[in-house]
Amino acid sequence: MAKTIDLNCDIGESYGAWRMGDDAALLDIVSSANIACGFHAGDPATIDATVAAAVTRGVAIGAHPSYPDLAGFGRRSMDISARDIESAVLYQIAALAGFATANGGALHHVKPHGALYNDAGKNAPLAAAIARAVRRFDARLILVGLPESALIEAGKAEGLTTAGEGFCDRAYEPDGSLRARTQRGAVFDDPKQAAAQAVMLAHSDRVRTICIHGDTSNAPEMAQTVRNALLDAGYSIAPPELL
Amino acid sequence: MAKTIDLNCDIGESYGAWRMGDDAALLDIVSSANIACGFHAGDPATIDATVAAAVTRGVAIGAHPSYPDLAGFGRRSMDISARDIESAVLYQIAALAGFATANGGALHHVKPHGALYNDAGKNAPLAAAIARAVRRFDARLILVGLPESALIEAGKAEGLTTAGEGFCDRAYEPDGSLRARTQRGAVFDDPKQAAAQAVMLAHSDRVRTICIHGDTSNAPEMAQTVRNALLDAGYSIAPPELL
Amino acid sequence: MAKTIDLNCDIGESYGAWRMGDDAALLDIVSSANIACGFHAGDPATIDATVAAAVTRGVAIGAHPSYPDLAGFGRRSMDISARDIESAVLYQIAALAGFATANGGALHHVKPHGALYNDAGKNAPLAAAIARAVRRFDARLILVGLPESALIEAGKAEGLTTAGEGFCDRAYEPDGSLRARTQRGAVFDDPKQAAAQAVMLAHSDRVRTICIHGDTSNAPEMAQTVRNALLDAGYSIAPPELL
Amino acid sequence: MAKTIDLNCDIGESYGAWRMGDDAALLDIVSSANIACGFHAGDPATIDATVAAAVTRGVAIGAHPSYPDLAGFGRRSMDISARDIESAVLYQIAALAGFATANGGALHHVKPHGALYNDAGKNAPLAAAIARAVRRFDARLILVGLPESALIEAGKAEGLTTAGEGFCDRAYEPDGSLRARTQRGAVFDDPKQAAAQAVMLAHSDRVRTICIHGDTSNAPEMAQTVRNALLDAGYSIAPPELL
Repeated sequence: MAKTIDLNCDIGESYGAWRMGDDAALLDIVSSANIACGFHAGDPATIDATVAAAVTRGVAIGAHPSYPDLAGFGRRSMDISARDIESAVLYQIAALAGFATANGGALHHVKPHGALYNDAGKNAPLAAAIARAVRRFDARLILVGLPESALIEAGKAEGLTTAGEGFCDRAYEPDGSLRARTQRGAVFDDPKQAAAQAVMLAHSDRVRTICIHGDTSNAPEMAQTVRNALLDAGYSIAPPELL
Repeated sequence: MAKTIDLNCDIGESYGAWRMGDDAALLDIVSSANIACGFHAGDPATIDATVAAAVTRGVAIGAHPSYPDLAGFGRRSMDISARDIESAVLYQIAALAGFATANGGALHHVKPHGALYNDAGKNAPLAAAIARAVRRFDARLILVGLPESALIEAGKAEGLTTAGEGFCDRAYEPDGSLRARTQRGAVFDDPKQAAAQAVMLAHSDRVRTICIHGDTSNAPEMAQTVRNALLDAGYSIAPPELL
Repeated sequence: MAKTIDLNCDIGESYGAWRMGDDAALLDIVSSANIACGFHAGDPATIDATVAAAVTRGVAIGAHPSYPDLAGFGRRSMDISARDIESAVLYQIAALAGFATANGGALHHVKPHGALYNDAGKNAPLAAAIARAVRRFDARLILVGLPESALIEAGKAEGLTTAGEGFCDRAYEPDGSLRARTQRGAVFDDPKQAAAQAVMLAHSDRVRTICIHGDTSNAPEMAQTVRNALLDAGYSIAPPELL
Repeated sequence: MAKTIDLNCDIGESYGAWRMGDDAALLDIVSSANIACGFHAGDPATIDATVAAAVTRGVAIGAHPSYPDLAGFGRRSMDISARDIESAVLYQIAALAGFATANGGALHHVKPHGALYNDAGKNAPLAAAIARAVRRFDARLILVGLPESALIEAGKAEGLTTAGEGFCDRAYEPDGSLRARTQRGAVFDDPKQAAAQAVMLAHSDRVRTICIHGDTSNAPEMAQTVRNALLDAGYSIAPPELL
């Protein structure tokens, strides 16, 4: 039987009059979507339309909560207390889940965005606050993070199902961390390179979902190349199953 | 058998470092609380704590959605499209409901705040957008508005249970509208005057819930006087029942 | 001697990670730029870079203040008190002027944005509040508005220099108002049609500045066509002179 | 001749419907005021009124720029790039200066707020960005910071006049840093203790301005006690002179 791998993408990152990403094209390719919840991107009408588009295509819906930082697109670390982060993440998950329900779907997973994702990979109290927010809202939701990170550990400690994530279009350091975006060669432009890394990541038993970024100019082409390579390698592409 | 009347109050209107209202005192007196959802007041940690306090006391939890206007405390009309309002209200209801669930309670009703409440009383497309948002999220929720207003009509058209609201501490015009806050005598300071009006409102079959404001300096005393007067008049005080 | 006409454009409307408009191309064509001040678009770093680019090219720098409404891009009317609008406009003008000074330039004019522009054309108290803000900050600044509008009248009443504005890429109604964007044919796509209307507007003694929009896909081409037509018609293109 | 010392206070920290501090009482006591610029507190109408009150009393007007964080009151560190901070501080200084001019006064100094103040005391690139913003706007402005901090060093490197600040109501550690607010005894409640520390700080040639906090319940009483003690010790109380 074919091993299953998930292909996920961050979408819904427009805001009001400002557009970002080719969400419709990506939704035809991925199996999971992490949808901005309004704190780094995603006004309510954008969320509503994005969730509806994901439900229509049967793509699994994830909340993509962030630090409260529209001007910085959630890419700047903020020194927020665990109590405030827990409530802020719960707020965002709940809002996103409401749109899922209202559009005939259901929330499937939670993946922190940007600086919150990176910080939660290393900062145990922050990771614990996020995991508590997920568990308090719905303990069946899947928490997505870097394999063996503080976030995944915190998710397990709260009794959540977790999913280790790999990045097919980002360079890794030998210690398994992502190369900083400010470094040369940190982001792959070549679809074939991304596809090769995707297949390698899929072979790893630490990775259950592979992220493809949607904010590059050739994102749909790259996503399609990655998807085809995974299918050619014998994988079926589907989201992790909920308990 | 005693007729039942609901006593409601707007709470959770602090924001970050800024405090507003004596929520703890009011929660000991009212039967329903309309809790700010983050758009006019109420950061996530404030919402979390406010909802927890309401659940502890068995007070019915309502979402109190607003125009997106922190600087204006939701008291300024905004010319927002029906589509955007529908999504904005759904977002706020869902976020509030998530905190209710996470704290062991459940969302009970929705009452628009400030300018959104006033505008929705007169503007049918706006009222319809709000009612759609409520119905899409959970068709069993109760929609609160001025009796016979466009909002109540819209709620009925969407098949929602509705509750007409009276204001015990505000002067009415002969046509049944509220006297504008900018007019002399628009707001009652005297607890006895508010109590007398509350009993009068309770007698009306158009009113199922009576609002007591929490932002006056003697709000808890006034709320207690109103509550006692309603009990003395033979009413039992409880939220409207959910279907 | 050639009559002088000003060609203006709204720019600096990116925000954080979100891009909008081809500002560099437009700045090579226009004589005046209306720069977003942070309330509908324009984070501080965007303002700084946009002002620097305008100063380098000798383009006259205008403040483009808005209602406080990032999510609505300043296109939604808000019922804000005259006192609050006066302070909000003063805040935005002052911030923009600071960047002009810091980059070796100087503020030249003020043109309200979007819904604030439209509302101030008809609402005398609102127009007066804007004009007071301009006069309080610097009485030599030029106030731009629709010819014979309430805004222009208010500017004159405050002793400001005013400049009537025409729109070369928007259809007019017989009464001189702009056709609503929601109507068919409200916005011209054809550069030649815009160029013809620009020349007609330049002939009018009510118009001292012609606006070319920067948010259409072919904005730079259209702006160049308009500029060439005005030059061919014998106009020199330059901003109105400051007193 | 009497040595001169400055007594400063953070004010203007209300926001919309939310009140904070007894600004009027404090303005009668201090010689300098640091006024919130809208990023952690201070909507435009509040800034306008606060600046007007300071000008009326002849109190020196300072800008009190912050990280962009209303929900956190500017008390949370944010990892913002030097370029973005430089523009964000310039924006806030310029806006505040505009209100000073419009109310018949002039900007006198700049003192970063909260987490930005603390971070700039230790982080040289951050401090340099702030100092550049001040110098670019007006090189005669005085930059206020902890004595011998990175911020004061950066100000000197940009050629600014600097003023070392002492805190009369905060406990110091032996290394000269402030005891963290989360520690026992970090904040003095006793006006006499604050007064004694104020006199001691005034004796130091490293301190030119003494801060008194306005957000405690007895702030005006404490400020008056401190002022009287400084006068009794032979100091005259006045802001540092501008070049």
